[in-house]
Amino acid sequence: MTGSCIFAQSGGPTAVINASAYGVIKTALEAAEITNVYGAANGIVGILSDRLYDMSREDAYELSLLPNTPSSELGSCRYKLKSAGDDESDYIKLLDVFRRLDVRYFFYNGGNDSMDTCNKISRYLQSVNYECRVIGIPKTIDNDLCGTDHCPGFGSAAKYIATSVAEIYKDNYVYDTGSVTVVETMGRHAGWLAGSAALAGLAGCAPDLVYLPEVVFDMDRFIADVTAIYQAKKKCLIVASEGIAYADGSFVSEAKTSSTDGFNHAQLGGLAAILADAIKQRTGAKVRGIELSLLQRAAAHLASKTDADEAFAVGEFAVRQAISGATDKMVAIQRGDGAYAAELTLEPLSVAANNEKKVPRNWINADGNGVTREFFDYALPLIQGEPERVLENGLPRYARLKKILA
Amino acid sequence: MTGSCIFAQSGGPTAVINASAYGVIKTALEAAEITNVYGAANGIVGILSDRLYDMSREDAYELSLLPNTPSSELGSCRYKLKSAGDDESDYIKLLDVFRRLDVRYFFYNGGNDSMDTCNKISRYLQSVNYECRVIGIPKTIDNDLCGTDHCPGFGSAAKYIATSVAEIYKDNYVYDTGSVTVVETMGRHAGWLAGSAALAGLAGCAPDLVYLPEVVFDMDRFIADVTAIYQAKKKCLIVASEGIAYADGSFVSEAKTSSTDGFNHAQLGGLAAILADAIKQRTGAKVRGIELSLLQRAAAHLASKTDADEAFAVGEFAVRQAISGATDKMVAIQRGDGAYAAELTLEPLSVAANNEKKVPRNWINADGNGVTREFFDYALPLIQGEPERVLENGLPRYARLKKILA
Repeated sequence: MTGSCIFAQSGGPTAVINASAYGVIKTALEAAEITNVYGAANGIVGILSDRLYDMSREDAYELSLLPNTPSSELGSCRYKLKSAGDDESDYIKLLDVFRRLDVRYFFYNGGNDSMDTCNKISRYLQSVNYECRVIGIPKTIDNDLCGTDHCPGFGSAAKYIATSVAEIYKDNYVYDTGSVTVVETMGRHAGWLAGSAALAGLAGCAPDLVYLPEVVFDMDRFIADVTAIYQAKKKCLIVASEGIAYADGSFVSEAKTSSTDGFNHAQLGGLAAILADAIKQRTGAKVRGIELSLLQRAAAHLASKTDADEAFAVGEFAVRQAISGATDKMVAIQRGDGAYAAELTLEPLSVAANNEKKVPRNWINADGNGVTREFFDYALPLIQGEPERVLENGLPRYARLKKILA
Repeated sequence: MTGSCIFAQSGGPTAVINASAYGVIKTALEAAEITNVYGAANGIVGILSDRLYDMSREDAYELSLLPNTPSSELGSCRYKLKSAGDDESDYIKLLDVFRRLDVRYFFYNGGNDSMDTCNKISRYLQSVNYECRVIGIPKTIDNDLCGTDHCPGFGSAAKYIATSVAEIYKDNYVYDTGSVTVVETMGRHAGWLAGSAALAGLAGCAPDLVYLPEVVFDMDRFIADVTAIYQAKKKCLIVASEGIAYADGSFVSEAKTSSTDGFNHAQLGGLAAILADAIKQRTGAKVRGIELSLLQRAAAHLASKTDADEAFAVGEFAVRQAISGATDKMVAIQRGDGAYAAELTLEPLSVAANNEKKVPRNWINADGNGVTREFFDYALPLIQGEPERVLENGLPRYARLKKILA
């Protein structure tokens, strides 16, 4: 089928999401079946507001720098499409754009919500008999998409976290005095990112305790764990996911301080500060909280080559498969049982939409404060290799797109 | 003069302080004049408590990995020597160790306080007619040592900060909604680190506002600066040194919250959280605070080759000059007027001891919220180049020393 294509990015960015953009854009620009390649500004919102960039107007060299460029270069959104049954207005607008530009290929790069959006659009277009191939392209540092072995973006975030935790470990031992450090990772619903901190152990820098949201958090047990380690060696390095929660389901990060005056006050700091404060109050140790914050999803300078290559490949594969007739699918990554190799497949969009893949309980140790061999075997291949980086002045040279509206 | 040498590390670590260690240890092990090479555990404290490692027992390959290894591999201290006139006991202990091991060379790697320690030891040894060559080797990410153009450690921290700020900048633009981000750097007394964030502008990612401790901070003016930028473009990226202070000299980071209930409560978060909260309360913008924390001094994975090479060179130079007869000096780095080239010199220890070099006021803009061309010209050469890194499993391979006590 011949026609135009629209590519859009959605949800939180990753260090390599633009490698997928490059995979789609390059392949689409080269494909005889695709007449025009549009990039939507800010995901689905850009389609609904008619902000589409003509990717054929971009310089080929600048496009080739996309894999080195962090964040979502076209802009992203967190826009939840209503179901067409409840409110058809967005769908009518979108169909109007698709018809006007003869869009026959739609590629949406995102996480769970984005696959849901993709799914809704695909079903709507089918319901009105508008022929269009719709393919979802996975990404998320959280690595919580179902239907795929792992998600592009996770490997680079894991490499950043493991490397940073190794560096923090070394720093934590610099003085001969007691010190406790708490590192907070992202991952509100799944512990893939927190767990990846344990990989620092392969550099001789294992965190002592790792807490994932898959296990109910107990503050007393936590303090006991930390105290035992601190008393034994005057040092303790803790990694915790922002998503850890108490038995009643409330996030530890939402705890209010219980000040001595009896009033409750919201904390300015996040989870790391809250845990650091709890340790300090109950052990007297010198404690530091470190939140890896945006850096863990933006650190293109420490991307995994395996991840960057796969991120490109899923974009390229999406376009090739759509041209061959695939639609209503998400690209997924599978791995075999032997030496690590990624195989790309197509899965139903509905598999990923609105589901969350957790770390299996048996990949977390019995005490719920570390990960097992299975986790290492899973995650280690994903952080391998260092992509070539283009630098100018000792600083990253990012893609500079013209972003000319179509 | 023939005899043993002691090398020790002091003060806060840097990403390349172990490159200086390697420069000293390798050169000393190869020198005919030096009979034994000892590394002190935890700086001067290791000498006073007789914890000296025999560096000749280390594997040469492991030693060669020191430049890749962050933090102070021998351990550091923050121990302030009393003046010998007030309390001679530490000096007597130290002299006893020096005599027993025939120590004739002493190399101390640190910042202002360490140069003061060096100076006191050197004068004491002279006063008791114990011949020993004493050389201070500079290091500090804060870059605030007098007598040297810049300090080993600063270039790598600056490269980390500029690169991370560029990545944060990209992330800050990912959504089409308003967002303000505040990044906190180290540098309690001088703004070299905060200023280096401005280098991200060369990657097209300039922070909008940069605050250095050299300029008195005014919260109302700060809010006005942020508001003006935020209103114009819905985005604002701010970098501030942890050391910014009000006109009365009090650190902004020490502010107490003034909660609605009228009670004052100490903040858990640091400066970034305090500024973020102030912006949020007074503009209603979505704000995120990011503290670069220990990572800026430990990020060996993003070291500057220029910095790492100079860190090695100052260590090597210290040993060579001491063998040639120099004593009571600090190694310093000078640069000429043309293309960047580092020339090593020896300066009196007293020049660096307990002084602090500030960013010149005319390297900061008139409004006190950014740096000028002079700052760029100064800092840019120091972040150039990427050292080769040894990796295993996609993770840094750090030196593994045996640390055998002598």
